[in-house]
Amino acid sequence: MVEPWQDTTLPAHARAADLLARMTTEEKTAQLSGVWIGAEPDGSGASDVAPGQHTYAARSAAFDALLPLGLGHLTRPFGTVPVEPAEGVARLAELQRTIRAGNRFALPAIAHEECLTGFTAWQATVFPTPLAWGATYDPALITEMAQAIGTSMRVVGVHQGLAPVLDVVRDPRWGRTEEAIGEDPYLVGTIGTAYVRGLESAGIVATLKHFAGYSASRAARNHAPASLGSRELADVILPPFEMALRDGGARSVMPAYNDIDGLPAHAHTQLLTQLLRRQWQFTGTVVSDYYGVSLLEEAHRIADGQGDAARLALAAGVDVELPAARCFNPADPLPEDLLDRAVLRVLTQKCELGLLDPDREPVAGGGTVDLNPPHMRELARKVAEESVVLLANDSAVLPLSDGPRIAVVGALADEQAAMLGCYTFPRHVGVHHPELATGVEVPTLDEALRVEFPHAVFVDDPTTADVCLAVVGDRSGLFGRGSSGEGCDAEDLQLPYGQGEVMDEAMAFGVPVVIVVLSGRPYALGRWADRAAAVVQAFFPGQEGGGAVAGVLSGRVDPSGRLPIGVPRSPGGQPAPYLAPPLGRHGFPSAVDPTPLYPFGHGLSYTTFNWGQPVCEAPEFTTDGETTLRLTVRNTGDRPGTEVVQLYLHDPVGTVARPEVRLVGYARVPLEPGAAAEVHATFPADLAAYTGADGRRVVEPGALELRVAASSARTHHTVPLTLTGPVREVGHERRMWCETRVK
Amino acid sequence: MVEPWQDTTLPAHARAADLLARMTTEEKTAQLSGVWIGAEPDGSGASDVAPGQHTYAARSAAFDALLPLGLGHLTRPFGTVPVEPAEGVARLAELQRTIRAGNRFALPAIAHEECLTGFTAWQATVFPTPLAWGATYDPALITEMAQAIGTSMRVVGVHQGLAPVLDVVRDPRWGRTEEAIGEDPYLVGTIGTAYVRGLESAGIVATLKHFAGYSASRAARNHAPASLGSRELADVILPPFEMALRDGGARSVMPAYNDIDGLPAHAHTQLLTQLLRRQWQFTGTVVSDYYGVSLLEEAHRIADGQGDAARLALAAGVDVELPAARCFNPADPLPEDLLDRAVLRVLTQKCELGLLDPDREPVAGGGTVDLNPPHMRELARKVAEESVVLLANDSAVLPLSDGPRIAVVGALADEQAAMLGCYTFPRHVGVHHPELATGVEVPTLDEALRVEFPHAVFVDDPTTADVCLAVVGDRSGLFGRGSSGEGCDAEDLQLPYGQGEVMDEAMAFGVPVVIVVLSGRPYALGRWADRAAAVVQAFFPGQEGGGAVAGVLSGRVDPSGRLPIGVPRSPGGQPAPYLAPPLGRHGFPSAVDPTPLYPFGHGLSYTTFNWGQPVCEAPEFTTDGETTLRLTVRNTGDRPGTEVVQLYLHDPVGTVARPEVRLVGYARVPLEPGAAAEVHATFPADLAAYTGADGRRVVEPGALELRVAASSARTHHTVPLTLTGPVREVGHERRMWCETRVK
Repeated sequence: MVEPWQDTTLPAHARAADLLARMTTEEKTAQLSGVWIGAEPDGSGASDVAPGQHTYAARSAAFDALLPLGLGHLTRPFGTVPVEPAEGVARLAELQRTIRAGNRFALPAIAHEECLTGFTAWQATVFPTPLAWGATYDPALITEMAQAIGTSMRVVGVHQGLAPVLDVVRDPRWGRTEEAIGEDPYLVGTIGTAYVRGLESAGIVATLKHFAGYSASRAARNHAPASLGSRELADVILPPFEMALRDGGARSVMPAYNDIDGLPAHAHTQLLTQLLRRQWQFTGTVVSDYYGVSLLEEAHRIADGQGDAARLALAAGVDVELPAARCFNPADPLPEDLLDRAVLRVLTQKCELGLLDPDREPVAGGGTVDLNPPHMRELARKVAEESVVLLANDSAVLPLSDGPRIAVVGALADEQAAMLGCYTFPRHVGVHHPELATGVEVPTLDEALRVEFPHAVFVDDPTTADVCLAVVGDRSGLFGRGSSGEGCDAEDLQLPYGQGEVMDEAMAFGVPVVIVVLSGRPYALGRWADRAAAVVQAFFPGQEGGGAVAGVLSGRVDPSGRLPIGVPRSPGGQPAPYLAPPLGRHGFPSAVDPTPLYPFGHGLSYTTFNWGQPVCEAPEFTTDGETTLRLTVRNTGDRPGTEVVQLYLHDPVGTVARPEVRLVGYARVPLEPGAAAEVHATFPADLAAYTGADGRRVVEPGALELRVAASSARTHHTVPLTLTGPVREVGHERRMWCETRVK
Repeated sequence: MVEPWQDTTLPAHARAADLLARMTTEEKTAQLSGVWIGAEPDGSGASDVAPGQHTYAARSAAFDALLPLGLGHLTRPFGTVPVEPAEGVARLAELQRTIRAGNRFALPAIAHEECLTGFTAWQATVFPTPLAWGATYDPALITEMAQAIGTSMRVVGVHQGLAPVLDVVRDPRWGRTEEAIGEDPYLVGTIGTAYVRGLESAGIVATLKHFAGYSASRAARNHAPASLGSRELADVILPPFEMALRDGGARSVMPAYNDIDGLPAHAHTQLLTQLLRRQWQFTGTVVSDYYGVSLLEEAHRIADGQGDAARLALAAGVDVELPAARCFNPADPLPEDLLDRAVLRVLTQKCELGLLDPDREPVAGGGTVDLNPPHMRELARKVAEESVVLLANDSAVLPLSDGPRIAVVGALADEQAAMLGCYTFPRHVGVHHPELATGVEVPTLDEALRVEFPHAVFVDDPTTADVCLAVVGDRSGLFGRGSSGEGCDAEDLQLPYGQGEVMDEAMAFGVPVVIVVLSGRPYALGRWADRAAAVVQAFFPGQEGGGAVAGVLSGRVDPSGRLPIGVPRSPGGQPAPYLAPPLGRHGFPSAVDPTPLYPFGHGLSYTTFNWGQPVCEAPEFTTDGETTLRLTVRNTGDRPGTEVVQLYLHDPVGTVARPEVRLVGYARVPLEPGAAAEVHATFPADLAAYTGADGRRVVEPGALELRVAASSARTHHTVPLTLTGPVREVGHERRMWCETRVK
């Protein structure tokens, strides 16, 4: 007989409710956490993926104890130690069989993995880091990439991916800047949503993190408190999450480690329940960040013991404790109503994933598994190429002709660590297994240059060269093992590892110097910018990054990346986000000038573009209306190239201080020499909404300026608009996108 | 016939109301601003006291136009250009006669002045900067100082002083750090209240500024937005204001330039009216910061024109526009009810100051005026001496014996600018009049050393010396004219003017180096601390500062100052206030360690002290009760010395993340060799109050720890306490002081 919870003709919620009613309290609790196999300190290849991991793993409810009760999650079956993909699939299939055999409902676990720069598994394609996605300004490509990543994960039995990071960068000293998409909520929201769409379209549960305010931690120190008011939270930090939930369909959310104004996100009822569930109508799961529930007791000191931490988190709206059961302990009962609420969400999601269907194996298993097939390498290459930003080329030394004498200086020129973000498998896990190969081919820039310039002479003595490439930036790593990455916060934005001296020396050689920055955050370049012949910036561009950067240097690839975050002039004076009202910018009485050297949105091409006069047929429209803008862009040079048309909003007078400009639309316009295209933008009044003096999010009548620009600091045309009608309050139904099409 | 408003037997409020009822709208508006004589760009000695001053002055409602209407304020009659005190008094008397003769009620104006480091007037005693007051931990002395300052101002016809600054330092890169008292709300509150008591006891209206959040401006840039939540505002930023109003009796408040989470303080109804007037029952005046009302239009962009700015400010609770009438313009009528509310406050204050009494001359005038008499110089010396902090003396090179060969390096050793804060007359105004003498004697450290060590040999070649004094720090100034002071924000905390190189050189001489820092903010000393023989810190110690520092070096003065703010190890990584919960400190996963080199509260003596076991007879008390603590401290050395007993509160578990420790009490204990004293502290449960998860300020039952300590990082004894009874909500009636007495 088929029980209701097994009946695939019933809706998921009904099946989950039926199953819930059959469970004991212990069985329910077991659904809210899981185990992390391979993370125990058993000496057999255990890696150090997270600080304190071994301690926690040892203290977690043991696998054997949980087995008869069932298991909510399996933590990183591929992402903990290197495993051959086919063997990993077989092991995971066996593990799920054991789990199913262990509990009376034959329920498998949800297997979750990291997938920030591709599937974080051995031999899987390593994509560029999210800051590079931001630099592409190409949501369609990011969706394509995420769909490919998701498909490869789904095939091997993974259900959930702990990505994307939707934190809006507020201070690039933060080590996790590389994991974020940029410093503008609209860019983060659109690119992040594009990623979510791709991942979810492959059947993988996307997990939005970190909810919320993590990037605003004090002095950009990992886990430090975030001093945020409700308005900054609503207008800067939260919009990407709302966009990715509503328009991306993400099915999971992960709270942040930090507190906001004293309230830890893992116990933040207002965020996790009132906003997320009631206002945004989110029905998926909230999974804790690793150890996030324990930190309520051990670091935030708002819980008196593990059980208290569990109750606080559960009551606030955390459904699942990751990476493994510790506070959510079947032996320490939780309030039944809260327990039911969380378990129902988990079981509903399991049902949607097919994990309640009796006749379905959760993992196919067997056969050859290729996690780095040609089409994924091709996607990695494309994202990398679109992400390289040409910051300066005053002397037109770029593109380099083939055949010159090239000197390459800087240790990072020949290091894979300068290509790979901290959440790539090689940097995240592989570093603990030096005996093993990287798993995928990652040419260094040095290697890629020799392929790109077959006729060049590479000389050791820069003074004999035609051009010197000064390659500087970061080594990614975690928790102090690199200069960028989780826990690798910086005191300031000077180049790490004394690379400033490398630059000083390079400038003294007497030959044109091209600065190539391969990094996870922007670094202060003001000291050398005037003397450099050209400056190229890439953000950990992944396994195909070497070729992408070399291609830009040779001109094979026209640089089309735009800065997702400003590059500062000097190392101090942070934070200095571009998203500031007039008093947060230069010109008012402070001896410190926060104006970036290269502003948000900046990026050059090898060709030239003409921007036609924008046409707005209805510059006056109502507070619930929209207007359209047309603009023709022409490639006036003799090379193909891509312009990125950017729309910024300037609101002259409001009830609170607002950013001087913020991004509200953009479009990539690839153009052959001489060709032109028309950009159509449909701008809804809702995009002018902000949280006013009374705390309501409103669109107000009055004058606006839409700035049609090549960067946040380079406006080609200003389009005056007038909103008419009453002040309009907007809620979850507001339109958060400017539809931009290229004809 | 005596009208009711002239009747000195009636209460001030009734007299003011009567007068108000007789006034025209234009006369009322004129009471809400004033004129700034001497600030116009007329070429006759006009100084550049504030940026944009000339522009604004020229645009202000002219004196002649206002005269028939009356005049609310006279801006800085002594503090704008140098004037001989006696002549200044005569001029002010004449001006007030003109003003009284000009309006039909014969009302004089309120004359206000700056008085942050003493009366900001030529030839007036220059006291140490507020950061030095904080270092004294001596409220009684600060009251004495402020009373002397106030008396000298009252005598010459001044009514209101624009001090103290009660901003709690949140990031010492802020140029105005020197104007603040420290980084702990309790220290700022107690010392600030002491200053207010002194000033008010002399009949001068004290003005609390800047209300609120100015010190939390982004990256410590002057005027930049403050990202603050309501809890941080309530628990860190506001308490000093509440203490100084309730217990100090301050009669005026000045809003801050910045916005808080988008809401400019000058238009912040919740702060200026709901909190200040309704909750705190404040009845004095709110006076704008200079140009603060104009900035609502010009910088914050929340006002559409000057009239709109005036209406917003007035509606929020600003009563008076300073420095002169611009937005509050008699020709541009303001809503009558709001106007009446503000004018009533101003007239009530004028009445209390005797300015409505028909038979009273507002300025005595004539005779000799000494603004720098011996008793004030003596007070300046005493405050300076108590403020010098001995940070390190590992090799016991200090005190120096008389007669050695001393080398002094560092340009600041012979500069007055290293002694004087940015609000001293010489640095604030005098710099624009280089033809005039400083007005008071300000020995440089170099000069003071030669007096202090009559038998020493001062050598030019440090390698031939017995000891090298490396004197480094700041030149105070305004708006970029110095390295510390209003507008002189820093990108990081490295010593300015390349003085790091001076230190590097000094360390290479091969002789013991004593670092002497004369500054307006703490600077990173980690690079040299291990190699220095001793480190002495003074914060702009005023005209008697040279002797005070020299006295500490010789041992004539036992160092008794304690740090009011931590001294960092490295220049970056700011902000890093000591007042942080565990995740804001070191030990959690960040590569940046914010632990200061010398913590808040740190300071050494030349003698040694024994701290007896504290006795607490009632360690368990109710949430509305109090307990007492007794502790004996003994001078176990052979020199007189002063210990500063500090009490810190640690609260193990609460509903929100709270500071690991915060100061809740302190007492200076001066002791002769071998002598002992008993410190009695009465600790009310209210001091454990904090703003909980639900936004209410409560005292909760449960365990507490009182740490009896020599600094925030050096605990001698921990006293466990237990609060019993119900959770208790506390409001304006809560007890905010720990009564500490020394027997």
